[in-house]
Amino acid sequence: MRIRDLRGISRVVLALDLTEPRRYWDIMNELRGLIKIVKISWVTLLTIGPDGLRRLISDNKDVYFLMDAKLADVGFINNIIAGKFKELGINGIIVHGFIGKVNMPNVSDLDILVLVSMTSGGELYDANFEEVISIIKEINAAGVIIGGNKPNLIRRARSYLGNEYVILSPGIGAQGVKPGCAIANGADFEIVGRAIYESSNPKDSFIKIEDESRKAECG
Amino acid sequence: MRIRDLRGISRVVLALDLTEPRRYWDIMNELRGLIKIVKISWVTLLTIGPDGLRRLISDNKDVYFLMDAKLADVGFINNIIAGKFKELGINGIIVHGFIGKVNMPNVSDLDILVLVSMTSGGELYDANFEEVISIIKEINAAGVIIGGNKPNLIRRARSYLGNEYVILSPGIGAQGVKPGCAIANGADFEIVGRAIYESSNPKDSFIKIEDESRKAECG
Repeated sequence: MRIRDLRGISRVVLALDLTEPRRYWDIMNELRGLIKIVKISWVTLLTIGPDGLRRLISDNKDVYFLMDAKLADVGFINNIIAGKFKELGINGIIVHGFIGKVNMPNVSDLDILVLVSMTSGGELYDANFEEVISIIKEINAAGVIIGGNKPNLIRRARSYLGNEYVILSPGIGAQGVKPGCAIANGADFEIVGRAIYESSNPKDSFIKIEDESRKAECG
Repeated sequence: MRIRDLRGISRVVLALDLTEPRRYWDIMNELRGLIKIVKISWVTLLTIGPDGLRRLISDNKDVYFLMDAKLADVGFINNIIAGKFKELGINGIIVHGFIGKVNMPNVSDLDILVLVSMTSGGELYDANFEEVISIIKEINAAGVIIGGNKPNLIRRARSYLGNEYVILSPGIGAQGVKPGCAIANGADFEIVGRAIYESSNPKDSFIKIEDESRKAECG
């Protein structure tokens, strides 16, 4: 499963940074059949461990699992970490762009999504945007991550990258950006966490947000 | 246990990025009584899981455990991750400086070590050294991480920080820097991994490298 092939099939990536093991299974069961891409993180690994993660992935075979490692080590270590996630069944991994081309991991059949701008802080990124985004074409990246609160950077990235690469935008919902806004500016996917998993009815919230994202309006 | 108080007691920080669970216990048993600080990483967590890590720490109560998370998320997530490591018994955590002051975690009794220059790649760091290192004094950091292959940056950091903060330098041994060199340039600790744990006699190698580090010569 490659993220590029999921464009148009679903617009919402569900971010699960849950600290109660059972809730991972509860939310996934509730969204079964609807949800196509889930972003998990080190919080997930610390909560359910590698064995739990393997089980979660195996219990949801129709879902693309994106590991938001924000990987930012030297190449030797990045490769070990990315390889271990691939073994656990992960489909894609987020890597920080500022670590440079030389440190990018290279694992077959594992999408590399390069973070090129954070939703908050990381001002050095935006000051060096051209330099960081140029990496994407030089390595075999699947796409980039750019905060949904940075519409100008999303537009610049889309214009530079063309349609071959995907753009994912976090910061939607609880962090303040309206669903549909990042898509309207050129993103392919909007990453939503708390607005879905902290809702009293995650299924209804997911359907509503997926619908808003599809409209791709930013009024 | 705070890292500042271990200055002078030991110069070598052992980096354990092992992918076989048993080897963590084997190496720690072999170095018992000698080793004061161990740096573990996400490789460790992926290999032994959170429960294994809790046990490793509890089996080595006299050792300072530094988690090389290279933490680089937004503040909300960084705080969850750092808090979970503190719960597992971790004493200090490495955080990337480029994420900016606004995203730094703040967990009581947990040392924050800020990475301000990588051994390879991350050229943006060195181009923005002054901006990144200025964070250390603004947050409650314990010290900084600077590659042992960057003696000029170690000297600049020591001159800027004075003696209140610790400097740790990776890249010693297998990565090419001679033990003692980073210390000679102003570092407090040298991080050594493969040159010890891949040696045929880790205990002898540790003693030899600790001795070279103490001499603080760079001839």
